[in-house]
Amino acid sequence: MTTEQIPPPQRLLMGPGPTNADPRVLRAMSAPLVGQYDPAMTGYMNETMELYRQAFRTRNQATLLVDGTSGAGIEAALVSLNEPGDRVLVPIFGRFGHLPKEIAGRCGAEVHVREVEWGQVFTPSAIERAIAATRPKLLALVQGDTSTTMNQPLEEIGQICRRLGVLFYTDVTATLGGNVFEMDLWGLDAATSGLQKCLAGPSGSSPVSLSPRAAEVVNGRRHVEAGIADGSAPVGTRIASNYFDLAMIMDYWGQARLNHHTEATSMLYAARECARLLAAEGIDNAVARHRLHGEAMLAGLRGMGLEVFGDVVHKMNNVVAVRIPDGVDGDAARTALLEDYGIEIGTSFGPLHGKVWRIGTMGYNARKDAVMPTLAAMEQMLRSAGAAVVAGGGTGAAREIYQDARLPAGARA
Amino acid sequence: MTTEQIPPPQRLLMGPGPTNADPRVLRAMSAPLVGQYDPAMTGYMNETMELYRQAFRTRNQATLLVDGTSGAGIEAALVSLNEPGDRVLVPIFGRFGHLPKEIAGRCGAEVHVREVEWGQVFTPSAIERAIAATRPKLLALVQGDTSTTMNQPLEEIGQICRRLGVLFYTDVTATLGGNVFEMDLWGLDAATSGLQKCLAGPSGSSPVSLSPRAAEVVNGRRHVEAGIADGSAPVGTRIASNYFDLAMIMDYWGQARLNHHTEATSMLYAARECARLLAAEGIDNAVARHRLHGEAMLAGLRGMGLEVFGDVVHKMNNVVAVRIPDGVDGDAARTALLEDYGIEIGTSFGPLHGKVWRIGTMGYNARKDAVMPTLAAMEQMLRSAGAAVVAGGGTGAAREIYQDARLPAGARA
Repeated sequence: MTTEQIPPPQRLLMGPGPTNADPRVLRAMSAPLVGQYDPAMTGYMNETMELYRQAFRTRNQATLLVDGTSGAGIEAALVSLNEPGDRVLVPIFGRFGHLPKEIAGRCGAEVHVREVEWGQVFTPSAIERAIAATRPKLLALVQGDTSTTMNQPLEEIGQICRRLGVLFYTDVTATLGGNVFEMDLWGLDAATSGLQKCLAGPSGSSPVSLSPRAAEVVNGRRHVEAGIADGSAPVGTRIASNYFDLAMIMDYWGQARLNHHTEATSMLYAARECARLLAAEGIDNAVARHRLHGEAMLAGLRGMGLEVFGDVVHKMNNVVAVRIPDGVDGDAARTALLEDYGIEIGTSFGPLHGKVWRIGTMGYNARKDAVMPTLAAMEQMLRSAGAAVVAGGGTGAAREIYQDARLPAGARA
Repeated sequence: MTTEQIPPPQRLLMGPGPTNADPRVLRAMSAPLVGQYDPAMTGYMNETMELYRQAFRTRNQATLLVDGTSGAGIEAALVSLNEPGDRVLVPIFGRFGHLPKEIAGRCGAEVHVREVEWGQVFTPSAIERAIAATRPKLLALVQGDTSTTMNQPLEEIGQICRRLGVLFYTDVTATLGGNVFEMDLWGLDAATSGLQKCLAGPSGSSPVSLSPRAAEVVNGRRHVEAGIADGSAPVGTRIASNYFDLAMIMDYWGQARLNHHTEATSMLYAARECARLLAAEGIDNAVARHRLHGEAMLAGLRGMGLEVFGDVVHKMNNVVAVRIPDGVDGDAARTALLEDYGIEIGTSFGPLHGKVWRIGTMGYNARKDAVMPTLAAMEQMLRSAGAAVVAGGGTGAAREIYQDARLPAGARA
């Protein structure tokens, strides 16, 4: 078999993520490697920690990368914080709430769930009632769930958790860098993310931050691997995973530099560059940019005659779901859009599969010249599929948003 | 804070890995992303499976990548194959034997260990006696342990395992592509690897292969995540990790393409290119190349007057350990080599720390023009550190090896 060098087709990725990486992130990944304890490498690690403190809006010392996709960060947080038998409360408002439920269950936690209909979010008082009823050690609540496009308000929930003595964890994979998130101000104890959404990188590295309170819980279960260092006896219930043991991962990223794994150097280069670009743009500017292009996409899709799914007031800036018009085969239409226009939009999970498409405007693709071609192509695609569509309605409505809007000076596009 | 674009220093990485990546692998990683279910992407996934079947020398359908460093593959194999209470036998001949012991213990397995002195390997009969005494479900045996440079012979052990009904797992992170490995011929049930040693890639992706027998064990514990697909009830004891659930990962890489994670696209590009380059060179040629340059390095270090650590008959092709001469501060000398010559050699773990350096010749750096500069620089470094050294003895002895040797026509250098 002769296999060629990677020759990927040019795609404009306008689904719910992964999205196209910023070319500067791709370039960073092609930089030469250095050794894992090279002063250059440990310097990059320290810079990366500081850059993600800025991204998460936190002063948490324990801000680092877990080597794996965003699910790796979620599992690391949950397996390190929860001991078997601990109670965990998971409010679920889409597919990505099922994930912490599932992971916490596999850790042996006693998992309690609350659910709202897909397309809705929880009120703070509903969360408070659920905490009062279940008395969990940890609340695991996704911020943005791309399966429904909903952005769960978190502002008031940290205070509730502090008052009731509950650790508060959130997954910000889908939201970080494109929606307001304030780790310290909102009282979060743990947050995990990924690069492939608003951060404009590839999947494969998971930024994680732990509050001092959460780090203390994890360090209470510290247990150094035999063969690495002697003299420190295990304390607390040993964490059920070696790879996801955040106590050991903190030792690797901290002063001790105890070997735990060989850091995925190229992915670290990518993660560093993602956060560097975010810091250079300014987080507020990046959020404003995602809001603008998200509004343009929303207006464009409506202007074309499509119906938006879910509670638009709580929609994430970076993704929108629209109902597939009657009579249109959603997957066939998506395939046509990919083959004829090189543009990818997203299908859906579970109860929404076949009913809605999900369209993203995030990271490098939160740009006018990504939004406008997508709307133009979708109009043609819908017409070909036999759907009623307002000619020029999509791009026209988006253009009106752009005419009225003004981005902050520092925002990228 | 203003942080610059990644500006890594040029390093020649001659430690036990990570090593410099082949420039073609770095280039592959900078290719544009495609969507995770794009026909191009699923095509790359299928090609990657086939390329790693060639690398592992197997026909196993279940040959795929786990998204993480090599430890991720190890943990995925052990947590997916072992249920709590299962007996696991771990023969330990260096640091990397402690790792499966530790991981299997965290999975709740009843772990039995055997140990030989660092620098030695196990005989097949010693393994057979240990199996007879402990009756494990699984034998976990590292092939090459860079902490001691030993290459554990595996040829006869698969037969023993089959006869005694034991699953046979090995970690080939440090050996694959540079030392003979025959997954099917030797009767392995599971093997896991990494890219950062002989495969000339960065850390961050772990190729894994499961025999049909091992895949059956894993699939006996299959449990599909809620919110993804309905109708398939869990069977067997649920795997204690979601991220490392090889049953779900097989579904993602298989026909079903059930969403489990968002594949780390750039790392997949890297993994594919590593195995593509290996296939293009030919595995036998690649092993011969590693053997030649390993021999040249060994001869050169001895020619300089250094004493080699461990049982040289069982030394891996790609790494050698030498005793640090009396009176030389090993870490200070390594630092001088890095700062003055841009060359990195390795320190050591546990009982060998401060006693030996480890020097690698692997992947892209299994080349004459990596070996010779390293020997030349080490002579100067040793002289500066006040050690007795044979002037010109290192490069002279290596040159003799190169003069006598002839690489197969297809080998790279």
